Amino acid sequence: MAAEPKFEGWLGKGPESAQGKMEWGAFPKVKTWDEGDVDIQITHCGICGSDVHTLSSGWGPTPYPCCVGHEIVGKAVRVGKNAEKGIKVGDRVGVGAQNSSCLRPDCEECSAGLENHCTRGVNTFASPYPDGQMSYGGYADYHRCPSHFVVKIPDAIKSDEAAPMLCGGITLYSPLKNNGCGPGKKVGIVGVGGLGHYGVMFAKALGADKVVGISRKAEKKDDVLKMGADEYIATDDDPDWANHHARSLDLIVSTVSSPKMPLMEYLQLLRTKGTFIQVGAPEDKLPDMNAFAFIAKGVKFGGSAIGPPWQIEEMLKFAADKGIHSWINKYSMKDANQAIIDFNAGKPRYRFVLENEKHL
Amino acid sequence: MAAEPKFEGWLGKGPESAQGKMEWGAFPKVKTWDEGDVDIQITHCGICGSDVHTLSSGWGPTPYPCCVGHEIVGKAVRVGKNAEKGIKVGDRVGVGAQNSSCLRPDCEECSAGLENHCTRGVNTFASPYPDGQMSYGGYADYHRCPSHFVVKIPDAIKSDEAAPMLCGGITLYSPLKNNGCGPGKKVGIVGVGGLGHYGVMFAKALGADKVVGISRKAEKKDDVLKMGADEYIATDDDPDWANHHARSLDLIVSTVSSPKMPLMEYLQLLRTKGTFIQVGAPEDKLPDMNAFAFIAKGVKFGGSAIGPPWQIEEMLKFAADKGIHSWINKYSMKDANQAIIDFNAGKPRYRFVLENEKHL
Repeated sequence: MAAEPKFEGWLGKGPESAQGKMEWGAFPKVKTWDEGDVDIQITHCGICGSDVHTLSSGWGPTPYPCCVGHEIVGKAVRVGKNAEKGIKVGDRVGVGAQNSSCLRPDCEECSAGLENHCTRGVNTFASPYPDGQMSYGGYADYHRCPSHFVVKIPDAIKSDEAAPMLCGGITLYSPLKNNGCGPGKKVGIVGVGGLGHYGVMFAKALGADKVVGISRKAEKKDDVLKMGADEYIATDDDPDWANHHARSLDLIVSTVSSPKMPLMEYLQLLRTKGTFIQVGAPEDKLPDMNAFAFIAKGVKFGGSAIGPPWQIEEMLKFAADKGIHSWINKYSMKDANQAIIDFNAGKPRYRFVLENEKHL
Repeated sequence: MAAEPKFEGWLGKGPESAQGKMEWGAFPKVKTWDEGDVDIQITHCGICGSDVHTLSSGWGPTPYPCCVGHEIVGKAVRVGKNAEKGIKVGDRVGVGAQNSSCLRPDCEECSAGLENHCTRGVNTFASPYPDGQMSYGGYADYHRCPSHFVVKIPDAIKSDEAAPMLCGGITLYSPLKNNGCGPGKKVGIVGVGGLGHYGVMFAKALGADKVVGISRKAEKKDDVLKMGADEYIATDDDPDWANHHARSLDLIVSTVSSPKMPLMEYLQLLRTKGTFIQVGAPEDKLPDMNAFAFIAKGVKFGGSAIGPPWQIEEMLKFAADKGIHSWINKYSMKDANQAIIDFNAGKPRYRFVLENEKHL
């Protein structure tokens, strides 16, 4: 049996940790080893908005101490003898926002390849495993994860660029793929940040006829066109943007999580029978909507949550084949607190990644 | 050229008409005759909630005088030489809630068979034609309609039962058909009134694995089971109905138009990836919703408006083949005001139909 790795990482001990006040330390206890598990020596971990929501208890009370981070890439250093997918010690692997689900044959979701919707799912951090132990995320040296949720990283994708795809990338790839993004479709991405920049790149690579980036300010326009958008709408620059672009899009994926977002105006952009998918989650209720907007055009509003492991693998292969590169800014793992401060200040262009030099 | 019929009917002259105070009289002017038109001698007209919303100016200011009614069946008494579909004088025909659309080849909606979503559509009443004349509905002796929106009534369906299918029926048939109602699907119908009773019957006839009627009170239970429902939920009888039936349905069509409806609880009834379609339109905004409900289960909320003429024809053929019978209560056309009073009192079991004896 391999030696137990030293499970240490950046711990949030209260809501103030969300202001860059995490403390390095040992995890209280990790998931009991199972022969289906993989231990990963972490080289990279992306920073996702969920990390900050959890550190601050913004989405409900957080079980402190917690270690956040669910865009993990590293080296498999211990692989259980029942591990799936032929993962071997030394493989370059990753884990996204989900660590576990029930995988029971009688689970409607797991048996349909919708593990991401399993009601018994375990998040990569701050979430209890069936054995009662909490999960601890990737701002850390090591991570233990059931192999079903571990994916191999294709050779063509560098570890630092792969990491943020594992949550940020799949969060956009999945609703685009599931809602028919491709030739013949005009697609809008609302909010072009860490999530949205994947939306623009994936929509274009999936062959959409037209990809439109939609954000409040004009400052990102050049970047968004470089990512592959055909058009950019800066809503702050045109008070009548919703009318000027009315009925122009078949599919919109919104990464915006402000409860003040102009949702009814976004819906105006949809063509008849169009679909609007929300992946950002306001901590409060959604803005007001009226039924006529839905009935008159026969449009739909939906939500989407990450994606199942098979779809993460599909996305990585697609990204490798199409030469898609994450736009990242790197910080050393030891500077995680500064990274959080800069993240809160809106500095990512477009995704922050922590790099653990001692494991490179 | 055939003689111009005498276009007379029940006129609403102000919001008080919605309390059964319509007055019989001649239409100010009807649509200019076009050789694509059909004049219909009305034998039957169903009573739809839209009639009352329009009489009362509930959905916005109504252009009085108006004549409502958009579930029209009768005899073609004049057929233009350019009429479509081989309609002949003497044919038993019907018209639903829509009288016209642009039918231009460059119209996204019309060219895709989505005439019901054409932005240049003309409603069967209180709506202006391109020639500037208003449309007048079916609480009347005659109706003029472009043939594209006139459907032949199959022999197997009696006129009185056909009439309310032309709006009430298609309003439920269309979202069921468009959203995959059939074998393997569990389907709920919220609000089992004039619209909802078609939802139960069509869902069952389309082969859904399970059909569940959902209404507030228990009093309709026996009826709804007779219509073909496998189960009935009386939400007033079980304060915890949403939890007891959580994650049980793939598709829900809601006919409820109260802005106080428990929408989040209805969404709880959906299984992962389920779809909720609203066909009732609250005059105000929709109840509050939160994004997590959509994201966690990957569900969608949408709207649906009647259906295009080809789908109305498909529905009538389907109803004829499956032996579906509307549950109706009949009133004489001359008692239209009393019918409206009884309609407002919630008496329909389940759809009121006016019968014009002089044309039988």
